[in-house]
Amino acid sequence: MMSAGGARGPAGGDGAAAPAGPEGAGMVRTVEWQDGVVVLIDQRRLPLEEVYIRCRTWEEVADAICTMAVRGAPALGVAAGMGMALAARGALRAGAADPTQGSSAADDARFRAALRAATKGLFDTRPTAYNLPWALKEMERIWTRDDLSPAEVVALMEARAVQIYEDDLASCRAIGEYGAGLIQGEQPVILTHCNAGALATAGYGTALGVIRSVHARTPRLHVLADETRPLLQGARLTAWELTREGISVELITDSMAGYFMRQGLVTHVVVGADRITANGDVANKIGTYTVSVLAREHGVPFYVAAPFSTVDLSLPDGSVIPIEERAASEVTGFGDVRWAPVGVRVRNPAFDVTPAGNVAAIITERGVVFPPYEDSLRTLEAS
Amino acid sequence: MMSAGGARGPAGGDGAAAPAGPEGAGMVRTVEWQDGVVVLIDQRRLPLEEVYIRCRTWEEVADAICTMAVRGAPALGVAAGMGMALAARGALRAGAADPTQGSSAADDARFRAALRAATKGLFDTRPTAYNLPWALKEMERIWTRDDLSPAEVVALMEARAVQIYEDDLASCRAIGEYGAGLIQGEQPVILTHCNAGALATAGYGTALGVIRSVHARTPRLHVLADETRPLLQGARLTAWELTREGISVELITDSMAGYFMRQGLVTHVVVGADRITANGDVANKIGTYTVSVLAREHGVPFYVAAPFSTVDLSLPDGSVIPIEERAASEVTGFGDVRWAPVGVRVRNPAFDVTPAGNVAAIITERGVVFPPYEDSLRTLEAS
Repeated sequence: MMSAGGARGPAGGDGAAAPAGPEGAGMVRTVEWQDGVVVLIDQRRLPLEEVYIRCRTWEEVADAICTMAVRGAPALGVAAGMGMALAARGALRAGAADPTQGSSAADDARFRAALRAATKGLFDTRPTAYNLPWALKEMERIWTRDDLSPAEVVALMEARAVQIYEDDLASCRAIGEYGAGLIQGEQPVILTHCNAGALATAGYGTALGVIRSVHARTPRLHVLADETRPLLQGARLTAWELTREGISVELITDSMAGYFMRQGLVTHVVVGADRITANGDVANKIGTYTVSVLAREHGVPFYVAAPFSTVDLSLPDGSVIPIEERAASEVTGFGDVRWAPVGVRVRNPAFDVTPAGNVAAIITERGVVFPPYEDSLRTLEAS
Repeated sequence: MMSAGGARGPAGGDGAAAPAGPEGAGMVRTVEWQDGVVVLIDQRRLPLEEVYIRCRTWEEVADAICTMAVRGAPALGVAAGMGMALAARGALRAGAADPTQGSSAADDARFRAALRAATKGLFDTRPTAYNLPWALKEMERIWTRDDLSPAEVVALMEARAVQIYEDDLASCRAIGEYGAGLIQGEQPVILTHCNAGALATAGYGTALGVIRSVHARTPRLHVLADETRPLLQGARLTAWELTREGISVELITDSMAGYFMRQGLVTHVVVGADRITANGDVANKIGTYTVSVLAREHGVPFYVAAPFSTVDLSLPDGSVIPIEERAASEVTGFGDVRWAPVGVRVRNPAFDVTPAGNVAAIITERGVVFPPYEDSLRTLEAS
């Protein structure tokens, strides 16, 4: 079981320090490694409550991912990496505690089998975000090495998990700077969908990283935040992140984006991504595709901000990205409240695919790429 | 004060009988005239509770309109007409009860002044739907006639109010039949936005009237219902109307319409209208414009179903339609539940305008018209 309770902040520990925001406002601590404990802010309860979950096993991390206590593709990568580090610790401990333990070779096999099971368990949590299998693969490179003892594997996996976290943070900063170079104008108005913020990453954010960096240069920046039904990540998370940092933001329903674009009140769209395929197709939160169609209709540039770990060059295009369908209860109401009639059927795809043709540029920590993405993404890979 | 309470159905009376649905399912009673009482189903509490409001004064009707206990452009026309009938009764009663009453001429002036005040009060409730001022104008034609005594005015206004109700019902039936002629195919899938159903009219509905008539011919019809944030008329009202009549329906969030269209799973869009201008621009519930852009992008015909009383030939185009902005609390949560952070700013336009270029046809009780609407709507007016 995860321990959540009423904790109002991460317990002390040697976890990586949360970075300060550009305005000096304390950045939210999305996910942290604290010496054998993965501390997650419970995003289901934001913004009304700021509660932290302390996971001590990979199963607890998997549960937090399934239930969306932690969400956002880069944050899922970070959490999965840390989950595997917990799995390694746990497997080592179980081996040491096992009175039946025999040969070192048998111990070793049990240890690797436990990590294989944890990899599968974490992989099976959510299908769409690519950063999650990417992080699992990063960890697999360690625990499949024959030349390492279980204790050495544990040490390397913990170090790698923290490194993934730190790399993600650095990537978000770089994405922010690259993106800010794209957003010109005295008074930009950026529309964003869902939450690709500090809460979706190790910190700072991808789409909101761009917004933070633009704001640092152009304080007159204004943001329109789609509320993002059904789980309302825009209303709950994006609005919360931006208001607490003093960035001008207005909350709208998803159905209003077209209204404001038609009035010429949106100058740019910036969103995150859950998976980007070799041709530049982008899976992201349901509704992103609609925003991309509206942006093209109104001549508004549509930018995708994501770390390169979101890019899946093994898939030719978005038609083969697995799209998660979630529970009907997310659509028939919100939380404990229900408003739809009993017995109504529901569809609830959690993501959609925006075709590369609607994407003006993809902003990564390695630089900004433009169409044709088949070429530009390969070039980035080599860089 | 309106009397609402826990009444589970309209109290007995001589109100117009509610028509049976095409499948024999009892049609919902949206608004009824019951000898001096306007009975409204409280749409804010649907589908979880079926509660009726009994209005005895025009002010109570105005309050029901402002608070959206009754909504939907045609239903607002019907309610406003009945509200004026209540105003006439009330003014006549007040005159008779006034011990200071002097000359018949003074009585008459007071009576007409009361009706002028009621007209303004009802006009000021909500600005976008044209059926509301249309119905007020219909009533004004009666109470401004010099040749009628107050008692005669009351009788004629009551008769006209009931006539508006009955005409609306007949119009919806005709709209349904005309619309069904447009919807071909073995297995149509119609996407609709908001609720242009029995609940938005005297009964049967406009967009849902078309759906009911299609269903009577093609039971394999399937409907996708946008939930329609912020007030969730699709989730609460459209899903309720269709499920209780056994019409196949799936509820989706507004952000999913593009996803399903891109997969080729939508064959037609049918929506209602709050006002249609001389050039064929259509004001309707916020989000309709976005659906129209998606429909054009995917080659899906986008139809508007509305009685001719929604057509405002005095306005050249949609840019001059007044668009109501409603309270922020509708967007920061739903009902008593709040999910957005404290202090966040909100935009909440309740309607948007779909340009005529996105509208494949307008379905009225007088027939179906196609572009160019400047010509075809004028032709309908003369018919």
